[in-house]
Amino acid sequence: MSREKVLQLLRAQEGYLSGEALSRDLSLSRAAVWKAVEGLRKDGYEIEARTGLGYRLISVPDVLTEGEIRRYLGSGGLLGCELHCLDSVDSTNTYAKKLAMQGAPEGTVVIANHQTAGRGRMGRQFQSPKDKGIYLTLLLRPCLPPARLMPVTAMAGVAVCDAVEKVCGVRPGLKWPNDPVIGKRKLCGVLTEMSLEGETGQVQYLVLGIGINMSQTAEDFTPDVAQIATSLNTSLGWAVCRSELAAALIREVERLYLTLLCGDLSEYLAAYRRDCVNLGKTVQLLGEEREVVTAVDIDEEFGLVVRTANGEEKTVRSGEVSVRGMYGYVE
Amino acid sequence: MSREKVLQLLRAQEGYLSGEALSRDLSLSRAAVWKAVEGLRKDGYEIEARTGLGYRLISVPDVLTEGEIRRYLGSGGLLGCELHCLDSVDSTNTYAKKLAMQGAPEGTVVIANHQTAGRGRMGRQFQSPKDKGIYLTLLLRPCLPPARLMPVTAMAGVAVCDAVEKVCGVRPGLKWPNDPVIGKRKLCGVLTEMSLEGETGQVQYLVLGIGINMSQTAEDFTPDVAQIATSLNTSLGWAVCRSELAAALIREVERLYLTLLCGDLSEYLAAYRRDCVNLGKTVQLLGEEREVVTAVDIDEEFGLVVRTANGEEKTVRSGEVSVRGMYGYVE
Repeated sequence: MSREKVLQLLRAQEGYLSGEALSRDLSLSRAAVWKAVEGLRKDGYEIEARTGLGYRLISVPDVLTEGEIRRYLGSGGLLGCELHCLDSVDSTNTYAKKLAMQGAPEGTVVIANHQTAGRGRMGRQFQSPKDKGIYLTLLLRPCLPPARLMPVTAMAGVAVCDAVEKVCGVRPGLKWPNDPVIGKRKLCGVLTEMSLEGETGQVQYLVLGIGINMSQTAEDFTPDVAQIATSLNTSLGWAVCRSELAAALIREVERLYLTLLCGDLSEYLAAYRRDCVNLGKTVQLLGEEREVVTAVDIDEEFGLVVRTANGEEKTVRSGEVSVRGMYGYVE
Repeated sequence: MSREKVLQLLRAQEGYLSGEALSRDLSLSRAAVWKAVEGLRKDGYEIEARTGLGYRLISVPDVLTEGEIRRYLGSGGLLGCELHCLDSVDSTNTYAKKLAMQGAPEGTVVIANHQTAGRGRMGRQFQSPKDKGIYLTLLLRPCLPPARLMPVTAMAGVAVCDAVEKVCGVRPGLKWPNDPVIGKRKLCGVLTEMSLEGETGQVQYLVLGIGINMSQTAEDFTPDVAQIATSLNTSLGWAVCRSELAAALIREVERLYLTLLCGDLSEYLAAYRRDCVNLGKTVQLLGEEREVVTAVDIDEEFGLVVRTANGEEKTVRSGEVSVRGMYGYVE
C-alpha cells in the first residue's frame, strides 16, 4: 500500500515533492518510491518527475478504485464498510449474492468497470461496456418482511436523482417505474434481488444493483438500446468523476435504507411524484394488451395511477405492465 | 465410464463373468477391465476375482453416486436431469443457488455425503456428519408468485413421508410445521430458499433442501440435538439404501411440484392432517411469549389452528412461533 501513501502525499502537495522527502516521510527506499510512482502511472495518474525538484501530481484518472472512492466517501457510515472494486465481472448483483452467501456483512459494495453479463429487470440484459459506466451493487440485510421492501427499487430511482443532482447540479427525471432519465432517454437501470427463506418468508439478504451510463455514445449500445439510452457525460457535455458519483450513490442509498427501516416513505413519495416525467402525459401501457391512457398519479406503493379512455381510474404495478411514451421512450 | 459399463455387466450376471468376456463385450483391453474393477473396489464395491472363472459382484456399497441413484431413478421425469454428487460441500442449498445463478436448469439436484456448514430454518445449523445422511437440494424455477410457493416446505414434509414409506414400508409422522419424525424424534429437516426480483416479485429460482438422518447415533450429534433427533436406520433397526431413498425423494418432490403448479393442494393437505402428530395434543407455543394450547387443525395454508386455555381458536404460522410437545420434542 505504499502506492496509496505516495499518492496521498502527492495530492497534499501543491507543487513538487522531492523523492528524498517521500522516501523519508514514508520510510521507503528511493527505489520503492520510484516503483510506487510507476505503479500509479500505470493506473493512469499523470505524475511529472523533474530532476532536482521531484514529483508532481498533474492529473488523476477516472478510475473506480477503492482509494478514489473512499476519498469521496469519507469514513463512518452504514454502507461501504467493504468495497470490492473489480475490473470485470459477470454481474455485480451475482457477485454480491455470492458474497452474501459467504457471510459478507451488510453494507458491502461491489463496483465494476465492466459487466460481461449485466442483468436488468424481467430477465433482460444490461449493456455494460468497459470503463463507460458505474456498475454498482449494495448488499443489505434488512430485518423487514418482503412486502416492506417492495418500494426499494422505486426509491433507488430517487436516490440516483439525488446523487446526480448533488454531484452534477442537474436533476434527472424518473420514468415510471424506476428509470432515471435525462433528455427523455434512459440514464440508469436498477435491479433489486432478494433471497427469502421460503416457509417463513424471512429475508436473508437483498442486493440493490445500480448501473449508470457515464460516457457511452450510440456506438457503445446495440441499435435498439441506442435509441432509448443516453449517458451522463454525453447529456451534460462534460465529464463527471465516476468515483465521486459512486461515493454519492452509496451515501444516498444509505439515506434511502434508513428511511425504509423507519417506515415513513413520504419524503421519497413526494420526490418521486415531483420527478416522475410521465404524470399528466399520455402513455402506452404494454402488458397483456396494449392500452393508451393518461398517467395521473403515483400511489402510496409507487404504483402508477392512470385514467383510461372511458374516464376510469386504475392503478398499474411494475411487473404487470411497462410504460412507453407516445413518441419515444418518455414522450 | 468403462467403470460404469463393467459394473452394469457384473450386476446383470448371476455368477462369475470372465475377464475375457468383459473385455470382448465392452471392447476394452484386459488391463482396462482390471483397472475398472480396481476403481469399483475403491468405491466400495466388493468384487471377487477367481482364476479360471472371472469376476463376481458380491456387494454394493451404500454410496450416493450418480450411477447408483440413477439405477433407482430410472429415465425421464422432470427432476434429476442433472445430478451433482459431491463428497463434501459447505451447504447443498448454497451450492445449488450458485448453480442457479450460473443458469443451471430446473430439476438440477445437488447431493452430498457431508455438509460442513449445513443450514436449517431461521438461520439455524443442520448437523450433517459424513456418510451418515442424505443431504439433498433440488433446484426449481416455478413461474408462480411467491405466495403460491409458501406451502412448498410443508408439502415437502409429506413428500419425505411418502418416500420413506415407499422405500421402507414405515410412514413417519409430521411435527408441525414440517419435521418428519419417527418415535417422537426428528428424522429430517427441510429448508426452502428462493430468490426474487425485488420490484416485480418475480421468482428467479427456488431451492428445496432436504436433510435426512440415516445412520447417525447420539454421538454423531451435539448433546442438544441428540436429545431430539433420530436416524432412519437406528429407528428401523436395519440399513436403508441411501441412493434408493434419494431417488424416491426426487420422484416424490416431482409429484409435489406438479401438484403445486396445478394448484389443487387438497391431497397434500389431507395427508398432512393425517400425518401431523400434534393434532389433538397439548403443545407449547414458543414465540414472543410462551403459551400452552391444544393443536386442533391444519388450515388451508398449512397453518396450525390451536385452542387456547380460554377456549378461543387462533391460527399460528411458521416463522411466528415454534411448537414443542409437553414432555419432549413431540409429546
